[in-house]
Amino acid sequence: MERKIDTIQEAIDWLSQYGEQFDGGVTRLLYSNAWQKAQEALRSWMDSLDIKTYYDKIGNLFGKLSSEDENAGVILVGSHIDTVKQGGKYDGAYGIVAGILALNVLKQKYGSPKRHIEVVSLCEEEGSRFPIACWGSGMLTGVLTYKDIRGLKDSEGVMFEEAMNDAGFSLTDRSYNIRSDIEGFIELHIEQGQVLEKLQKPIGIVQAIVGQRRFQITVCGESNHAGTTPMNWRKDPVHGAVEMIHKLLASVDHYDENLVTTVGQIEVKPNVSNVIADSVVFTVDVRHPNEKVLNIFCESFLQNFKQIAYELNVEMTSHLWHEVCSAEMDDHFTKVLKNVCKKRQISYHVMNSGAGHDAQLFASFCPTALLFVPSQGGISHSSLEYTAPAHLETGLHVLIDTLYELAY
Amino acid sequence: MERKIDTIQEAIDWLSQYGEQFDGGVTRLLYSNAWQKAQEALRSWMDSLDIKTYYDKIGNLFGKLSSEDENAGVILVGSHIDTVKQGGKYDGAYGIVAGILALNVLKQKYGSPKRHIEVVSLCEEEGSRFPIACWGSGMLTGVLTYKDIRGLKDSEGVMFEEAMNDAGFSLTDRSYNIRSDIEGFIELHIEQGQVLEKLQKPIGIVQAIVGQRRFQITVCGESNHAGTTPMNWRKDPVHGAVEMIHKLLASVDHYDENLVTTVGQIEVKPNVSNVIADSVVFTVDVRHPNEKVLNIFCESFLQNFKQIAYELNVEMTSHLWHEVCSAEMDDHFTKVLKNVCKKRQISYHVMNSGAGHDAQLFASFCPTALLFVPSQGGISHSSLEYTAPAHLETGLHVLIDTLYELAY
Repeated sequence: MERKIDTIQEAIDWLSQYGEQFDGGVTRLLYSNAWQKAQEALRSWMDSLDIKTYYDKIGNLFGKLSSEDENAGVILVGSHIDTVKQGGKYDGAYGIVAGILALNVLKQKYGSPKRHIEVVSLCEEEGSRFPIACWGSGMLTGVLTYKDIRGLKDSEGVMFEEAMNDAGFSLTDRSYNIRSDIEGFIELHIEQGQVLEKLQKPIGIVQAIVGQRRFQITVCGESNHAGTTPMNWRKDPVHGAVEMIHKLLASVDHYDENLVTTVGQIEVKPNVSNVIADSVVFTVDVRHPNEKVLNIFCESFLQNFKQIAYELNVEMTSHLWHEVCSAEMDDHFTKVLKNVCKKRQISYHVMNSGAGHDAQLFASFCPTALLFVPSQGGISHSSLEYTAPAHLETGLHVLIDTLYELAY
Repeated sequence: MERKIDTIQEAIDWLSQYGEQFDGGVTRLLYSNAWQKAQEALRSWMDSLDIKTYYDKIGNLFGKLSSEDENAGVILVGSHIDTVKQGGKYDGAYGIVAGILALNVLKQKYGSPKRHIEVVSLCEEEGSRFPIACWGSGMLTGVLTYKDIRGLKDSEGVMFEEAMNDAGFSLTDRSYNIRSDIEGFIELHIEQGQVLEKLQKPIGIVQAIVGQRRFQITVCGESNHAGTTPMNWRKDPVHGAVEMIHKLLASVDHYDENLVTTVGQIEVKPNVSNVIADSVVFTVDVRHPNEKVLNIFCESFLQNFKQIAYELNVEMTSHLWHEVCSAEMDDHFTKVLKNVCKKRQISYHVMNSGAGHDAQLFASFCPTALLFVPSQGGISHSSLEYTAPAHLETGLHVLIDTLYELAY
């Protein structure tokens, strides 16, 4: 470490140099050079703070503040070091540097904890280089195994294992020991939405991370001349797709406000103004914190789509290509967070997370908490991602107090 | 001419060698090598039949069967020699080779006509190389002038004038003399739709060519995270576009069956499944034989679009980028065609043309007729374009008899 890092903002700015883009954004893909340099920089920072560091087999980086009781359990705090392409400098990074600063403050102020506290810089969450997400937390929690990365390639044809080996990590024996000492996980993250900003709340305490389903819907019709084909002879997949999306969005009104659905991608073929299309492919993204509600909604809209396809004489097929179950955060941890906020007179909002996080994988493995700070304009995955320093500090203070409550 | 052409099918197959593609389709773009060779081949064929040939300044090729009365007017018959990229061998070509065969039969059988009869191979109709359509008929009828091609480039950056000059034609003085001797135009063309096939009619007599309007509709919203943005906070341009197209297609029911509207092109940005879109651009193609109906429909749907944009909190702009007025075919010519069919006991269907044709430009210049033969499956602008030889022959016979009625 060349210079001392005092504030959370300094830490974020300092870490963003690894993978910094011309526009101020950050690209730090799993096992890339920027990624390796960022992990090594974190390690040397923790070393300089007398926090004991080590890597696991796959490149998750840990820093440990030890209890005097060697057999004590571990409270883990952290987030992911990787970013999307042209991402922001807060997403993931904030939870790691806040964890390191928290450990340092706790160590300075209170000495050794009763439970070990470890900070983890998880190697991967975004799924931006290889077609797999939450690799770091997935391996730690046993949700993923070696099989899940076998044969995976990035967009340039580099094999996952080759990239891992080149970065100095390996699963040569194809096994990974699931730890039994982790007694809790806390993730501090930017909200990536506008809820806290609009409600003017500095802290969000997450009660559940939504379950997700992503479908690809293909509607096939019959391409024809836009001028010479009477309307009642047409098998127009654009008409089919439009009626389906119309019905999908209208049906949301029958559900509670936690249900969100998005059609973000539409591809028309041949996509020519004076030609009735041959096919339309569109995506449906659905999220809700209750798996039962999610399943009922999905069954219902797929049934509607079939009916519309039948009525409009087009073919419809659906493919569920992404499925993540909802995850509830731990009641006790949530209570601790609320009490910490109350004590500090920090206004908080209990909410769901509409985005996926590492905490989602930990939730079925150990008591887990997820804590949000506001994102300006809700912008994320962009160089425009921003959280005001005051909010960053508030999140850090809540984290420090919570770790104190859980580990001292 | 190396060999004699006896049938219309032979003529079409022979001409398709100029610009023939690996899949059996034809690409013959304006002023290209294939185009030049095709025009020269037609000229040498007509020369071999003692039909007097000449080009105009821009490359329209004429063949003349002269009346003994030099001051007699001209009945013009023909269509366009150019094709779309990867087009079929019947579109345009049929009307030219049928015209040449008709002149030859009439000459052999009846000698000199009372009115001159000319066949024309119009240089361009499709608009596939340069962003201008009906260049050949447009100049002949005075609808287009030099100004319309000034500065135009093809997709490879070649200037329109340069291409014209390289093919041996020029508008160096920038003027083109509009002829005053043309007393009628007859175009024989494949239908490019399925109406005749479905009705099992070998001949279509066109009463009107529809007017066309093409709009580009841009809907702008606010891009956001699909998971973290509540439904009622969204400004989703996909939602806006879907409601607009839904309303557009539903409103067609209030009009007569001649009104057709098509959304063939949709572009979503950024087009990512888990991101609420930033903008959607889509096209609306509308056609009807009555200009008044067309205008009322367009005004009405644009008003609906504005209302929907307002209700869904998105921005909507429209751009009318293509406008062709409807054209009525000549009553007398139409009567002649009907009588010819009746005499020959050929079943015909009086219909509108949903596609544009050179005849559309001639309609305001001189009495004009447009005659269709069936297209198998309605397929056109494709190597699969096909009309059975028997239908080609029927069309030719009707053309011969009609020219006899009008010129002898």
